[in-house]
Amino acid sequence: MLTPLFNPSSVAVVGASRTAGKVGHDVLRNILTSGYGGKVYPVNPQAEEVLGIRCYPSLLNVPENPEMCVVAVPAPVVPSIAEEAGKRGVKVLVVISAGFKESGIEGAERESQVVRICKKNGIRLLGPNCLGVIDTATPMNASFASAIPIKGNVAFISQSGALGTAVLDWSLKEGVGFSKFLSLGNKADLNENDIMLEIAEDINTKVVIMYLEGVEDGRRFLIVARKVTQKKPVIILKSGVTDAGARAVSSHTGTLAGSDLAFDVAFKQTGVIRVDTAQELFDLAEVFSTQPFPKDPMVAIITNAGGPGILAADAIEKQGLRIAPISAELRKTLIEKLPLNAGFNNPVDILGDATAERYKFALNKILMDEAVTSAIVILTPQAMTQPDETAAAVVEARNAFQNKIVIASFLGGELVDNAIKLLEKSKVPNYPFPERAVSSLAAMVRYTEYLSAITRRQIPHLKVDRDKVSSIFKDVKKDMRVNLLASEAMEVAKAYGIPSPTVKLARTREEAVSLAEEVGPPVVLKIESPQILHKTDIGGVKLNLNLDAVAKSFDEILDNAHKYASKATVYGVTVQKMVHQGKEMIAGIHRDVTFGPLIMFGLGGIFANFLRDVSFRLAPLSRKDAEEMIGETKAYSLLRGVRGEEKSDIDSITDTLLRVSKLVTDFDEINELDINPLFVYKDGSGCLALDIKITIR
Amino acid sequence: MLTPLFNPSSVAVVGASRTAGKVGHDVLRNILTSGYGGKVYPVNPQAEEVLGIRCYPSLLNVPENPEMCVVAVPAPVVPSIAEEAGKRGVKVLVVISAGFKESGIEGAERESQVVRICKKNGIRLLGPNCLGVIDTATPMNASFASAIPIKGNVAFISQSGALGTAVLDWSLKEGVGFSKFLSLGNKADLNENDIMLEIAEDINTKVVIMYLEGVEDGRRFLIVARKVTQKKPVIILKSGVTDAGARAVSSHTGTLAGSDLAFDVAFKQTGVIRVDTAQELFDLAEVFSTQPFPKDPMVAIITNAGGPGILAADAIEKQGLRIAPISAELRKTLIEKLPLNAGFNNPVDILGDATAERYKFALNKILMDEAVTSAIVILTPQAMTQPDETAAAVVEARNAFQNKIVIASFLGGELVDNAIKLLEKSKVPNYPFPERAVSSLAAMVRYTEYLSAITRRQIPHLKVDRDKVSSIFKDVKKDMRVNLLASEAMEVAKAYGIPSPTVKLARTREEAVSLAEEVGPPVVLKIESPQILHKTDIGGVKLNLNLDAVAKSFDEILDNAHKYASKATVYGVTVQKMVHQGKEMIAGIHRDVTFGPLIMFGLGGIFANFLRDVSFRLAPLSRKDAEEMIGETKAYSLLRGVRGEEKSDIDSITDTLLRVSKLVTDFDEINELDINPLFVYKDGSGCLALDIKITIR
Repeated sequence: MLTPLFNPSSVAVVGASRTAGKVGHDVLRNILTSGYGGKVYPVNPQAEEVLGIRCYPSLLNVPENPEMCVVAVPAPVVPSIAEEAGKRGVKVLVVISAGFKESGIEGAERESQVVRICKKNGIRLLGPNCLGVIDTATPMNASFASAIPIKGNVAFISQSGALGTAVLDWSLKEGVGFSKFLSLGNKADLNENDIMLEIAEDINTKVVIMYLEGVEDGRRFLIVARKVTQKKPVIILKSGVTDAGARAVSSHTGTLAGSDLAFDVAFKQTGVIRVDTAQELFDLAEVFSTQPFPKDPMVAIITNAGGPGILAADAIEKQGLRIAPISAELRKTLIEKLPLNAGFNNPVDILGDATAERYKFALNKILMDEAVTSAIVILTPQAMTQPDETAAAVVEARNAFQNKIVIASFLGGELVDNAIKLLEKSKVPNYPFPERAVSSLAAMVRYTEYLSAITRRQIPHLKVDRDKVSSIFKDVKKDMRVNLLASEAMEVAKAYGIPSPTVKLARTREEAVSLAEEVGPPVVLKIESPQILHKTDIGGVKLNLNLDAVAKSFDEILDNAHKYASKATVYGVTVQKMVHQGKEMIAGIHRDVTFGPLIMFGLGGIFANFLRDVSFRLAPLSRKDAEEMIGETKAYSLLRGVRGEEKSDIDSITDTLLRVSKLVTDFDEINELDINPLFVYKDGSGCLALDIKITIR
Repeated sequence: MLTPLFNPSSVAVVGASRTAGKVGHDVLRNILTSGYGGKVYPVNPQAEEVLGIRCYPSLLNVPENPEMCVVAVPAPVVPSIAEEAGKRGVKVLVVISAGFKESGIEGAERESQVVRICKKNGIRLLGPNCLGVIDTATPMNASFASAIPIKGNVAFISQSGALGTAVLDWSLKEGVGFSKFLSLGNKADLNENDIMLEIAEDINTKVVIMYLEGVEDGRRFLIVARKVTQKKPVIILKSGVTDAGARAVSSHTGTLAGSDLAFDVAFKQTGVIRVDTAQELFDLAEVFSTQPFPKDPMVAIITNAGGPGILAADAIEKQGLRIAPISAELRKTLIEKLPLNAGFNNPVDILGDATAERYKFALNKILMDEAVTSAIVILTPQAMTQPDETAAAVVEARNAFQNKIVIASFLGGELVDNAIKLLEKSKVPNYPFPERAVSSLAAMVRYTEYLSAITRRQIPHLKVDRDKVSSIFKDVKKDMRVNLLASEAMEVAKAYGIPSPTVKLARTREEAVSLAEEVGPPVVLKIESPQILHKTDIGGVKLNLNLDAVAKSFDEILDNAHKYASKATVYGVTVQKMVHQGKEMIAGIHRDVTFGPLIMFGLGGIFANFLRDVSFRLAPLSRKDAEEMIGETKAYSLLRGVRGEEKSDIDSITDTLLRVSKLVTDFDEINELDINPLFVYKDGSGCLALDIKITIR
């Protein structure tokens, strides 16, 4: 538990300075003026007192053991402060000082040193190179930010301190409130995973928003984020998504930016809501922190102007939400009091001369309808418009219909400024353009959808023969190889229930014939040699052979190998049953630096190279993940059966992907795995991994 | 010329009212208080004077013939007012009154009546159901909007009046200035095309922005927009893009919303910048109205915070712009005065303690570099930051480097509010989030790129045999058919230079043999009958025939036709040369309700149905259009030659698409045209439209 970080019983500020504007001064002043109720101990050998409180020459002289210690001294001094903190039983060290990993090799070494000292003494470390931490419930502002945020239910975690200060300033203007506010700095110890876990349990926080440039421990992130998003929404702005961005990151805080694709997938699988811009981060924070979760994506629009209504309707459809149908009954109710030429379809256009009374009537009647789960109230300031009174009516409806979403888009400038303030003060987010209102709503719906499928997002238990694969890998390693032979790869597949044809290795002509009889004709013969990768090119493959052709073909293949690849070690010739052609797909894995095995599925065949019709998910896969990744490809419409084509066995693909996921999760040494082709047959007839390549390390 | 609309010598206001809040009162008051210098004549039979000016009982009593007449009387009275306006030689009628097409059948008839009266009398009509017109240069506010916009160089044309009023109010708060401001209403006469053409010549306007729900005359729009965008940028927010939006449109102003795809293509081909949200519309207006056009997409970022710098760098790459490289020389200059641990790559991170002086130094040195064409200055308010002084330094640089783009992203709230006002007052747009600064810049770059290829965007002159096609179509019509026979379609193709195999119609067995000799074996025989569409299904096709197989095959085909399609009229059997298989593509046309023939190109073959790898452009095509549409498909990488594959003859596809475009442009009666497959051969060997289906109406 990180209570000592957010609500310590006492705080020491090492490097407390008497000079306003210096970090060590500002942090102390902020703690003192933020209403913090615990004991505060400034430490500075050059001062008797700072800001009217007694100052101590060293942490060792402080009269009690402080739970938290904020450090704002030059970087070279920090290790010795950490040692002293260890002696005083400090629980959390917040290092604001810069001059660590972000500044080069020397700094990185110093950072490691501090981490070692903290570990040894059981101290958790925030930073270094951070802004500090703010908790509005405690209350405590242990940061050098000049203002304390408004109290609210949004927790903000930023990897960038400067972005933090800008956001804080902006939040004061917009009236956005925070529960917790901290910058992670270099993440030498505490990182997004630790903080997320802590905030998941925080009763003052309804939504977590983050700015990240990378994650420290991708595999743990997958587990932590999955857990946290089940308790509260997590919204992340992840930068460094492009090459240019990633280069800028490494010159910034030295995070190794993983592949952006993997981040996208990681967020999708764990229910994290990813946003592309800082603007969206706050647009979403507003709606998530004030509105109930919608059961259904059924949206009603009430407007006094056609144009913005259309813009909202467009956005609703684009975002995959639904325009709530207006029932005959509701229409009858509305017609009673609305002008005849009003628009009674959704958007409900209550016309340019709509007063607050008319808004109130329409909004209440519409929210009473069970089919409507959310309402967007659009207002443009026209001659008869009453912005303030309309805002009051919207707020009233917001309070009357607790289980429905009510948000607003009052357009304009000074004429609506006051009304917007009224709305936002009363938990009705207002968006200056209707499209942004809709995008924010859509994020809520997506999050609810994610949660609704949560049981199908469990990692399934599959029966596999793990020992068998271990022993094959051991043999391969003993043989000093990294590539598995085709026969070995097929055995691995079978051990994990990945459907694949039986492949037997024949060392002699006679063995080939007897194996051919065993698997049943027609058969395929292929040269088996770790050095011959392109078997067809050297005449190492013979297809569709009857029993009487096996012996001759065996000899020919060995002859060809001898002729065209005389230096290769030949293990023999594999014999396998010739299989029917199915729909040609591919599957495989690739290891992402941050998150581990990334599983790929897509269309195979001659078009695979240039169409790139593929989708990705990170291992371990849930059934839902596997289904989603199949569904994302265009090939899905081929598999599902279009234009009279037969439906393919999609369930068998799902199962195969789950088993591939289990395999690469169980064996970290698998570096690459490629199934090409994966033949898929008609529904009920399964699929077959015809060719499997596995590389270990 | 629409001078009487924007700068009339005199104006009559019919329906001038003494009651404040009534439209007829507000329009008159706005004209009088806007500084309008011409004569103003209120018309109202019930009043002696309104707002202190003499009022006339009827338009017929006004002492001079007014150039413009604003009408704000109940709809049923409008036709008689139009008649009176005709008698008084009025040049422009601005009908504000509602109750026309938007209100149902009766209104639509009334609207037609007014249009007829205006046409007869040579009067141009704005509206009905509009907000009116504002010109800040004249100056004149002949609208019922409550405020007059700030004078500026942005012309705003809105199909929605209410959106217009909201935008006006918003613009006053944000300090955005307009040259002209009008709402189109029902567009009974004057529409976006007329107004665009007029504004193209307006010296007070630098950029045109529009909100549209549809266009009235799509073909004219293509011509007009192409012309106007060469003179000034045109930015359009087009709503009704989705089904829901389109339904809302038709219940709003009754515009028939064309397919959104066609709008997308129309905007692309004419150089119109399309935006998706109202926010973008104004973001772009700001940068286009204040900045020079960039020659190159080379952007420098100067920032005092890493995080926002990364966000900007990400956005730059995502938007296809380029991060300007920092030359060794520039780096040397920068190092002289910047702290050692500053970031000298782009983004140039001048660190959290950057003063205005440091910003000034870095920005000036960077803008002096020839490789840099644009700069984005990012500022977050930190302890040492001087927002106002930094804003002044940015404005100074803006003025010193007239040929470069300088925009800002000062993040935060109250701490930067004043600085932002300073920036915007001095033509430096500020964006509250760096991503929006980059998007706006990207739009400028795309517009410049469009203009730079303008000569290749001419419609080429192609030599074709138009008479030949006319005569074929005449024959088909005489035959009471809508589908062309294969032999006819091939003749049409040949007349327009679309490469296609020679197809000859044989009516007898002997004719078939002699035609086979003529085209040379191997040949293909196909049944020719207007009723038999799926020829293969009834055994009506024989492939790859040698000369001695022709006679027998001819008989078999006729037998099959007799057996399986006994009621079909059989014209004979076509004889054509068997051709080599090429890369399988498709091309075709479809008629869009708004813009006319929409040309399609894409991947053919078995995957065509579910991969939908196709692109579209509207006829007539320029060479650049054709190239772009080929380049947009994924099949392009196949054609270009990937992974050792040979390059295909892309030029021959371009030429074919141009010829298809010419054909469907010349002949309006072509309803559908499908080339499937279009075989494409290796570079230099052309392509071949193997099967062409043409339907006329």
